[in-house]
Amino acid sequence: MAKYSDLADVLRSRIEMGLYQEGQRLPSLRILSAEYGVSLGTVQQAYRVLEEEGLAAPLPKSGHFVSRKQSLNLLPRMREIEKHPLDILEWDEIYKVTASTPDKDVLQLGRGMPRVDTPTLQPLMRSLSHEAKRWQKDGLNYENIKGNFDLRSQVSRTLIDSGCQVDPDEIIITAGCQEALMCSIRAICNQGDIVAVESPSFHGAIQTLKVCGVKVIEVPTDPLTGIELESLELIAEKWPIRAVLVNPNCNNPLGYVMPDDRKKILVDLSKRFGFSIIEDDTYGDLTFRYPRPKAIKSQDTEGKIILCGSFSKTLAPGLRVGWIVPGRIYDKVLHTKYISSGATATANQRAIAEFMGKGKYQIHLRRMRAHYKSNRDIMTCWISEYFNARVRVSRPEGGYFLWVELPDGVSAYELSDKLIQKKIQIATGKIFSSTGKYENCIRINYGGILDERVELAIKTIGNLTVEMNISELVR
Amino acid sequence: MAKYSDLADVLRSRIEMGLYQEGQRLPSLRILSAEYGVSLGTVQQAYRVLEEEGLAAPLPKSGHFVSRKQSLNLLPRMREIEKHPLDILEWDEIYKVTASTPDKDVLQLGRGMPRVDTPTLQPLMRSLSHEAKRWQKDGLNYENIKGNFDLRSQVSRTLIDSGCQVDPDEIIITAGCQEALMCSIRAICNQGDIVAVESPSFHGAIQTLKVCGVKVIEVPTDPLTGIELESLELIAEKWPIRAVLVNPNCNNPLGYVMPDDRKKILVDLSKRFGFSIIEDDTYGDLTFRYPRPKAIKSQDTEGKIILCGSFSKTLAPGLRVGWIVPGRIYDKVLHTKYISSGATATANQRAIAEFMGKGKYQIHLRRMRAHYKSNRDIMTCWISEYFNARVRVSRPEGGYFLWVELPDGVSAYELSDKLIQKKIQIATGKIFSSTGKYENCIRINYGGILDERVELAIKTIGNLTVEMNISELVR
Repeated sequence: MAKYSDLADVLRSRIEMGLYQEGQRLPSLRILSAEYGVSLGTVQQAYRVLEEEGLAAPLPKSGHFVSRKQSLNLLPRMREIEKHPLDILEWDEIYKVTASTPDKDVLQLGRGMPRVDTPTLQPLMRSLSHEAKRWQKDGLNYENIKGNFDLRSQVSRTLIDSGCQVDPDEIIITAGCQEALMCSIRAICNQGDIVAVESPSFHGAIQTLKVCGVKVIEVPTDPLTGIELESLELIAEKWPIRAVLVNPNCNNPLGYVMPDDRKKILVDLSKRFGFSIIEDDTYGDLTFRYPRPKAIKSQDTEGKIILCGSFSKTLAPGLRVGWIVPGRIYDKVLHTKYISSGATATANQRAIAEFMGKGKYQIHLRRMRAHYKSNRDIMTCWISEYFNARVRVSRPEGGYFLWVELPDGVSAYELSDKLIQKKIQIATGKIFSSTGKYENCIRINYGGILDERVELAIKTIGNLTVEMNISELVR
Repeated sequence: MAKYSDLADVLRSRIEMGLYQEGQRLPSLRILSAEYGVSLGTVQQAYRVLEEEGLAAPLPKSGHFVSRKQSLNLLPRMREIEKHPLDILEWDEIYKVTASTPDKDVLQLGRGMPRVDTPTLQPLMRSLSHEAKRWQKDGLNYENIKGNFDLRSQVSRTLIDSGCQVDPDEIIITAGCQEALMCSIRAICNQGDIVAVESPSFHGAIQTLKVCGVKVIEVPTDPLTGIELESLELIAEKWPIRAVLVNPNCNNPLGYVMPDDRKKILVDLSKRFGFSIIEDDTYGDLTFRYPRPKAIKSQDTEGKIILCGSFSKTLAPGLRVGWIVPGRIYDKVLHTKYISSGATATANQRAIAEFMGKGKYQIHLRRMRAHYKSNRDIMTCWISEYFNARVRVSRPEGGYFLWVELPDGVSAYELSDKLIQKKIQIATGKIFSSTGKYENCIRINYGGILDERVELAIKTIGNLTVEMNISELVR
């Protein structure tokens, strides 16, 4: 047995015996190193085991703490199965979230931004700066419409972790995952088609379906395991589903990872009913459990699963670099990409390829996974503490979003209006539905630095929802 | 009278009297300065006047030459009016031009690339590099979906030269002009609509119309004045035209500038028949006559003209930054942009805004206009010299393309195949038509450095077409 493993056993049993209480600080590396006569590295390894098990959480510059038990929060409820495919609502509320210029004074807890100020991104910045200096070397010219070859090779290598054997020539680089989704949907769907989606679901995908004249049927979605396959089967028996659009790994907004056996059943259903699967894997690399979850695409034997990915959440959204593995419909997707925006911006692709080629992507991911995981724990604690006991909270296994279901009757829209006056921005649940469901839900981004300002904001949100709930009950 | 003007008069009369012959070198700045007792700057100004008049052309590091008369070449012929709107052909041949990775050994005369290795772009590279170093300042995050405000302000200022008073909030930044065109077409057209286009016409626009299920009617287009309004009127009387898509300033591929009075008639027609105008002004800033031509948009009183522009041809295509002024359909275009690729890449927008803010854009344009104009003259001379006398050549007033009509029966496609074996790439005429017209036409990019290698290539193309023409006649 390794030394770190022994030490982890000791610490685990002390936590379980209640010697260290929830939220309490654990002994420092230095003290444990002296006490057990092991190296600092061994203590660190022991703590990493406890972190993996969810027993301890690191707080930057403050050491380790006993994790608060998260099972105290109720999970968000699943919605009932819909009776018909429906037309998609207007985008006025999405516009509020996406089109407003971020005001520096407003705390942005609603947008989809990852944390981009970590030192592990510095090599990427150096590559970008380097690109700008190599300006006479074609960096200003059109890139290949399929995307930079080195970048496609790097993506191809990374996809092995998702269980996918994909040749660089089967990959098309896009301007972010949004373009990848748009190209997939345009290539597969015709006006009047029916597409099944998770509920809640990413607004960018829903709105794309809307513009393509597609009707959407939202499938009840379990906050721990994803789209309900039993409901999907019922729906597919009743309606001619053209495609199912899923975000199975570190789902936005719920954070679940769909279990492998359920992924397999989905693939079986797709074969039985002849629908395509559009898989949005934007957040998969941000899983808290390593190795990362497999893509549904890894079970594709017929080239009918379209995999979409992106560097927007793992590196930086401002780069606008994503990708698509279109399988059988490669030609149609490439044509759609060509008319959509031509080739993707050149220098950004090259810089990312260089960054990945130097092994910096995995280093950055390791750091971000640990950061987001620790933040999930902190944010979950804060919500338990500051919100009404009837609040329901997701338990993300990756990514940087919490989905919070407020008591019935509390309008997230009203809440959002009140919060914006207090310089706090959140995303309202309605935009994650094609038909305006989730009126009492909000999505909170915990990706940033969780300082006192954020804690105060969460307290403010909590207090406001409690007030709103009381006035709702009185009404 | 200014001194430079006097000197220009002297030189002009000498050229007209035949003292200096076509293609002959003119006296150097130093000699004229000494001879007339004026400053070098005055001589330079005098030469600039002659350049403007098309009498003299500068050749880098070699001084000035008497321009060869270009009127010797016949103009390409206009095609007849079409009987019906037609479905658009497949894109296999376009794919060859756009999707192939540029081979370093192949001389690229077919693609749409501008020259990007001039020192006037260095400040842009510095801004880009600077952006990469300011990475902690939000440069990696999503930009506003409408586009960076500073950039929109700069575009708004630049548009004054096109006669357009447009507020920054009426502009949406896009991933190049292709995305601008796509958003316009998607926002205006429905499946089955009829759109009138110039003939020949930019392939990216035609293919976008194809994907939108739109039928196209090509309108005969004069190589000097643009779309034939008389034909357009006949067409609009017969068919319910939804929109007219034009590229009136420094047209791609013909290079004409549509005269202002004809632009006005087009606007009148649009009011009379109720069609929209989609104006692609990608090349307008690269005019050889200063001030630059007005946009059709400048005559818009109803918000029904959609103006699309880009930095792809004036700065660098690899940046993927364009814009759109959607007028009345602003909301719909913004939604289309949002689902198409979300916000446009952040750092590139900021770098261009900084570059423009420092006045570097106009400096760069001045240089490029002179460069392209001189190259047009040289390339036109080479074609007159090396091609069959029956060749017909456009007379561009801006941009960097020559449209060459080979004798009937010579297949540009066959020519292209033969040339690629000799490491020379050209664009075949067919891709500029929705129905495969222009089989005997090619487009040549004269934007690069016209060295001996290019001259040899033009000679090779000329020789091959002469051979192909003879075998066609014998057949």
